Amino acid sequence: MNDPTGQEVARLHQEYVLQPWAKQGGPVIAVKRAEGIYFWDYDGKRYADMSSQMVCSNLGHQNQVVVEAIRKQAEELCYIAPSFAVKPRGELARLLVRIAGEDHFQRVFFTLGGSDSNENAIEIARFYTGRPKILSCYRSYHGSTLGSAFASGDWRRFAYEVGGAAPSFVHFLNPSVYEDGFDRTPEDEARCTRQYLHQLEEQIAYEGPETIAAILMESIVGANGVLVPPKGYMEGVAELCHRNGILLICDEVMAGFARSGKMFTWQNFDLVPDLVTFAKGVTGATVPLGGVIASKAISEFFVTHPLPCGLTYSGHPLACAAGLAATQYYLDHDVCAHVRQLESVLKPTLEGFARRHACVGEARCIGLFAALTLVVNKETRELMAPYHTSNGRMPAIFAKLRERGFYTFGRESNLNVCPPLIITEEELREQLDILDEVLTWADEEFCK
Amino acid sequence: MNDPTGQEVARLHQEYVLQPWAKQGGPVIAVKRAEGIYFWDYDGKRYADMSSQMVCSNLGHQNQVVVEAIRKQAEELCYIAPSFAVKPRGELARLLVRIAGEDHFQRVFFTLGGSDSNENAIEIARFYTGRPKILSCYRSYHGSTLGSAFASGDWRRFAYEVGGAAPSFVHFLNPSVYEDGFDRTPEDEARCTRQYLHQLEEQIAYEGPETIAAILMESIVGANGVLVPPKGYMEGVAELCHRNGILLICDEVMAGFARSGKMFTWQNFDLVPDLVTFAKGVTGATVPLGGVIASKAISEFFVTHPLPCGLTYSGHPLACAAGLAATQYYLDHDVCAHVRQLESVLKPTLEGFARRHACVGEARCIGLFAALTLVVNKETRELMAPYHTSNGRMPAIFAKLRERGFYTFGRESNLNVCPPLIITEEELREQLDILDEVLTWADEEFCK
Repeated sequence: MNDPTGQEVARLHQEYVLQPWAKQGGPVIAVKRAEGIYFWDYDGKRYADMSSQMVCSNLGHQNQVVVEAIRKQAEELCYIAPSFAVKPRGELARLLVRIAGEDHFQRVFFTLGGSDSNENAIEIARFYTGRPKILSCYRSYHGSTLGSAFASGDWRRFAYEVGGAAPSFVHFLNPSVYEDGFDRTPEDEARCTRQYLHQLEEQIAYEGPETIAAILMESIVGANGVLVPPKGYMEGVAELCHRNGILLICDEVMAGFARSGKMFTWQNFDLVPDLVTFAKGVTGATVPLGGVIASKAISEFFVTHPLPCGLTYSGHPLACAAGLAATQYYLDHDVCAHVRQLESVLKPTLEGFARRHACVGEARCIGLFAALTLVVNKETRELMAPYHTSNGRMPAIFAKLRERGFYTFGRESNLNVCPPLIITEEELREQLDILDEVLTWADEEFCK
Repeated sequence: MNDPTGQEVARLHQEYVLQPWAKQGGPVIAVKRAEGIYFWDYDGKRYADMSSQMVCSNLGHQNQVVVEAIRKQAEELCYIAPSFAVKPRGELARLLVRIAGEDHFQRVFFTLGGSDSNENAIEIARFYTGRPKILSCYRSYHGSTLGSAFASGDWRRFAYEVGGAAPSFVHFLNPSVYEDGFDRTPEDEARCTRQYLHQLEEQIAYEGPETIAAILMESIVGANGVLVPPKGYMEGVAELCHRNGILLICDEVMAGFARSGKMFTWQNFDLVPDLVTFAKGVTGATVPLGGVIASKAISEFFVTHPLPCGLTYSGHPLACAAGLAATQYYLDHDVCAHVRQLESVLKPTLEGFARRHACVGEARCIGLFAALTLVVNKETRELMAPYHTSNGRMPAIFAKLRERGFYTFGRESNLNVCPPLIITEEELREQLDILDEVLTWADEEFCK
């Protein structure tokens, strides 16, 4: 069989594939190969992957240590059912428990991606506590199966509510410092934290703490704009959970695996969750894998109570082998230290953009987890695109970046800068220069 | 790092892994390797995989064509996001559409496994029809995320209803010929079909046809006992759907990919579904993959309406490459013909067991998709274990088989015989002799 051309690959996609979150049959880039922070189309055009695809290719593309682990496991044993013990599954579970902290955590339930990780964490929390309600943030995304979609806060939830939402999913407003009109001064952050914690405390009281199984939150809200929380907010939520016997589930699907300069983003805060959900970075997207890390207390509960969760591919050996190699890679190469070092380039550069560019309202950055909020007017903080609307401005900016070989995505008025964590300083600076130029264009094009 | 011993592998599993549907920390077999229809523990004990693990390793273990495709794709491109075109994704979509029938089907939405395939089919059906309700069978299992769990009929659903079930999931009773007291005579099957179709028609009328988006059913109920439906039943359901503008979703997660002697099990019946969900056999479990094949009409709808579904790993290239190789393997080696040929060995042998053994109430077999219903009394059809109870009898039978190197599983009073589809006649006969002996033991041990 001859290798197809780029046009043929694109045509197959346009004719036969149902593409997520899109109208079908539109123009599409056919990708031929990828390596490190780059990928190439069939015309040889190079793109820098400045979003690590869906913030998942944390180790870049085609990391040879991970590829070799996949090859080796594929040749040895692709699959065996979850009821058997198999080397990479047990070894990865132990490694993840150690990274999360063996003094507090004990067992891992493996899934395939973020959605079913959050699904299973919700079920585990309900079953363990015997309480029905799950509280989660409006500014959040947790997945696209019914449970993870009902828990999600952004408008992608609506489509899943066509048949009526399940009861016991309750949303609360979490802070978005800039959009809420606060500044990043210590005083303003403290006010913002106080206000949102007060409101959450009230909402917990009115919902009835004894009815709430868990608060599910992204350790840092990702898809909705890398919303670095105001100081003290996350610790305050954890304290409210602790005081009310409510479990804290930290969703590390996007935030986890060195993205923020720690292996888990909650490790930047002074708190310990009861359940940690993960996916994406655990294999760097090379093989689908996700999971839930459970505290000792919860793990112990399921020694005497059957775990009411399951899937055919829980702890899939090929996926676990990729996960083991990738996770060990983060540790062996101290990727966290590299990320923290590059934060010292990325953060001030983006903050400089926020000062210099009319279209940049705020820059948020922790590790290599960053986003810009784009505005048409800095005085009024009027967003480039009002919530849940499209006026073509953000797509135009992304297209302009893509033309220049800078690939990323964003939601609403956010533009993500989340490159593979193995990016070099030189590569990062080169790409930031491109971003700078496109922002200058956007200043002129869109700002009042 | 030294290779761990079997005891060490087992210990890691017992200490660190949350195993599905089980109490944690119990005894576990550590699997060292697998090939063809066999797998081996660390003591060198060989097991014949007479359930293809979770009825998913359809091509047996370590099929070299599939392993080679995984190796090649891993070295080329493990992952790229769903918004890009990539060779194996488009090629697999086209192949699946062709197998399902290009005159009726057009596009494929890829997922990771059975649960999220059914989740997305439910959402697509609701969005396309604008109707909320999903009708599904009590005797069914569709997965373990909220949507797929709510649609499931068996007691595994209960755990997911702790927070309250979502509205718009309605269950109906589907036939289990033997347990319902019918015989497999043409007259009795016709009576059974008539009765269950009449009841379903009534239920549709009372629910309101205009509120029902879809009927979701396994083409043949799998996990609940390979319930081969009475003649005419499936066609009758399809006709009720057609008459009422209700979509028919065939769940082919377990039944699909040559298991029944056709690539899709619905192809044994005179009907065409609107949506087909699949997983397991598409890659023979080598890499997690699932999906939904959509009719032309539904596919066309999403050219003008954004598809409100998505996941990071939709159409994962490594998974699609494995799927492409496995699916092509079924066709190139005419696995369906082999399965139909071995049905002529398996079916009469199991039916012979039903005649000869006091403990075998009924044998059901289509292709290499078979189950026995075990009873303590053939006259009264009293089951080996009443529904949703455990009295230790079925576990004892499975343990006895396992001792003899015959590995399978079953639910309730069913014992599955679903070997890899590449099993030879000689291998099959050898294993059926073991089953015969263990059934003789069960006759004496348990039957009144």
